[in-house]
Amino acid sequence: MRDSDKRSYSSRPVLTINLTAIADNYKALANMVGTARIGASVKADGYGLGLQQIGRTLYGAGCRTFFVAHAGEGKLLRQSIGNQPTIYVFSGPAPQDSAVLFGNTLKPVINSLSQARDWVQTIEGVIRAPRVALHFDTGLNRLGIPESEASVFAEDKELLEALNVDLVMSHLACSSTSDHPKNKEQLDAFRRIAARMPMVNLSLANTGGIYLGKPYHFKLVRPGIGLYGGVTTDNPLEKPRHVVELHAPVLQIKNVKKGDTIGYDATFTAPKDMKIAIVSAGYADGLPVSMSGSDNNIISFARLGKNNVPVIGRISMDYTILDITDVDKFIQPGEKAVFYGANLDKQAQQTNRLNYEILTNLGQRCKRVYIRDGDSKDAKPKTAKPTTAKPRYDDNKNSARASKTSYSPQKNKNWKAKGKDWGAKPKR
Amino acid sequence: MRDSDKRSYSSRPVLTINLTAIADNYKALANMVGTARIGASVKADGYGLGLQQIGRTLYGAGCRTFFVAHAGEGKLLRQSIGNQPTIYVFSGPAPQDSAVLFGNTLKPVINSLSQARDWVQTIEGVIRAPRVALHFDTGLNRLGIPESEASVFAEDKELLEALNVDLVMSHLACSSTSDHPKNKEQLDAFRRIAARMPMVNLSLANTGGIYLGKPYHFKLVRPGIGLYGGVTTDNPLEKPRHVVELHAPVLQIKNVKKGDTIGYDATFTAPKDMKIAIVSAGYADGLPVSMSGSDNNIISFARLGKNNVPVIGRISMDYTILDITDVDKFIQPGEKAVFYGANLDKQAQQTNRLNYEILTNLGQRCKRVYIRDGDSKDAKPKTAKPTTAKPRYDDNKNSARASKTSYSPQKNKNWKAKGKDWGAKPKR
Repeated sequence: MRDSDKRSYSSRPVLTINLTAIADNYKALANMVGTARIGASVKADGYGLGLQQIGRTLYGAGCRTFFVAHAGEGKLLRQSIGNQPTIYVFSGPAPQDSAVLFGNTLKPVINSLSQARDWVQTIEGVIRAPRVALHFDTGLNRLGIPESEASVFAEDKELLEALNVDLVMSHLACSSTSDHPKNKEQLDAFRRIAARMPMVNLSLANTGGIYLGKPYHFKLVRPGIGLYGGVTTDNPLEKPRHVVELHAPVLQIKNVKKGDTIGYDATFTAPKDMKIAIVSAGYADGLPVSMSGSDNNIISFARLGKNNVPVIGRISMDYTILDITDVDKFIQPGEKAVFYGANLDKQAQQTNRLNYEILTNLGQRCKRVYIRDGDSKDAKPKTAKPTTAKPRYDDNKNSARASKTSYSPQKNKNWKAKGKDWGAKPKR
Repeated sequence: MRDSDKRSYSSRPVLTINLTAIADNYKALANMVGTARIGASVKADGYGLGLQQIGRTLYGAGCRTFFVAHAGEGKLLRQSIGNQPTIYVFSGPAPQDSAVLFGNTLKPVINSLSQARDWVQTIEGVIRAPRVALHFDTGLNRLGIPESEASVFAEDKELLEALNVDLVMSHLACSSTSDHPKNKEQLDAFRRIAARMPMVNLSLANTGGIYLGKPYHFKLVRPGIGLYGGVTTDNPLEKPRHVVELHAPVLQIKNVKKGDTIGYDATFTAPKDMKIAIVSAGYADGLPVSMSGSDNNIISFARLGKNNVPVIGRISMDYTILDITDVDKFIQPGEKAVFYGANLDKQAQQTNRLNYEILTNLGQRCKRVYIRDGDSKDAKPKTAKPTTAKPRYDDNKNSARASKTSYSPQKNKNWKAKGKDWGAKPKR
């Protein structure tokens, strides 16, 4: 950080979002799937990082198909990427959303027979209605047409013709675990269904599905988290570039005495005389309260210059307290403590959150700064370029990676993860 | 719900925010503190509910003093409440924020001696600089001037005069626990410090501090969570009106067979043939992943009409799955599943979150609908009016309430809270 930055700091926390990294992640996934195309999942405001910026970046990288959850998201995206790209709306054509779908040429994903029939009624007499995707539920048991209804579609040529389907899709439930039997079950079900549908493009794979290999790729893959730098599978080749850092400016440094308590509800008592830094970001900005460090239970660390410093005391709405006792450098207000970045997956694990959940909970109060490689030294990529090699399908599992992503409320071991196991210096 | 609502639903989730309830909570707290004034804490976008709407509502209820965390928040608030009210900025005058402070007549909270001196330099030559608050740290060990530096201020008349202080304040660490010894320690320290400062208004109490009683009220109290419907203390008289509900429209109903798995990573297996509803809200909208129900471990429920229905399977980014097997009424797409409201504190506890954290994590994607009592039957208050009685200071503690609010990463019992203990129908 330059000295001028320190003198001129604001109290507002900053998110840096590296658009080059997102484009690189896109290209790496595109390389992995060969002739299949990529339909980027940019729902939930581009996984919390900014729908319009992300949309433009992916468009610039060559993406021409996008998926959002709601028609309103599609409208915003359309405004940023122009009329050419295809935008599908996962949640389907809810009655009140028709005007937004029509007005922005969004393609609804049809999730049930009744939705299909309602849609056909809606577009009756419309000369150029958007084409649609048919979404079959092959075992996630969330949205989608049950396999048992596939025959109704297959046999009702009039309905299919009226719908004007251009994509048949399904969604994987367990793709994060490469050897989960459900993956193959869903693949088989999807093939059975697709065989009875019109000859249109097929799509099954999310990011995890891409790593399951070519049989899962079909014509279109739909990565989300892999674009945004989060690891989601147990495949050791999955190494997305990290995308987002949360920068919290130091507001104040102070000394506390042995025995003093720190933060709300006095959950941390100084075991010795300590020096602490109060930084300007809290749970309203995207740091989970479960990152709080209490007595003998340090959960996580921030990066402050070259140091990893423990989070101590309860994280509050706007501020977080760091133990800088062992930092030999002089720290002054305005310096930035950094969260996430290369440590996104680790910090999600430590705080008992999904990495996805960390991203979508990043606070709107943070100033979003979109950077590109070369903008400054902070933005330069130091991690390895994402692999362009095809995934391996051997038994070389990395169970530590798998446990990172399989979330379970019962599994609270990580909650007490030893802080010191994050001893290694971050790579950048 | 009217039938017309069902026919015309959108897939977008909706937050209803009851402004009458907020005004009522304000008035109830104002009654409790008698001649003391209220300075409302509206930081973090009004605790996630919308800074400008909340600001106007509180202004309408009589509030003339507000606290925000950052200068940028003060600017937005100023735009909505006009030039008259006082707005303090907790984070202090960071160098880059000076123009926003001056331009919007925001009063910085001075948190350290060096900040005080920097500020005096900044305003040198300014004819009408904003007055400031001095914030002393009496034991929270977060932002604030250490007591040891109070004498420097007390003796430097020139500095005090240049600062033009109009408020001396501190902040309580343990006010949620009425018999915590730290409350009295901080009160004593605050009195010692105040005795040495200019004769200006004094402020110590947050919502919890208000319930600690008159000695904590001084001239100005600074409630936050109590305005927004969250319970924060172990005082059984604390009964704010609930303010916010999250409404998730049903997108699809489906039947699953015994043995089918539901949701990501197949964490829930149907113990019998079931009927499920997929509703349109997920963790991007403010439902924590820790609300997910897995096998034999139902964490929480949504209200669907008159029924409380279990959340099953992993909550995903955009959707949540409910078990409606036992609902005897015909459920159709467009009906709304309701989260939070009267169950905010309970659902925070069940999901191992602070109620504050639930509020600030409510998704920006939700449509925010501001309602007032009488707008519709949904908006009518059914809970008891907040008490206007003075708090009691006896030993009649309610430990269940206390445990609700004292968060600890180690305490994971609640994580496995029995779903069935929420058997009682909600009050409204």
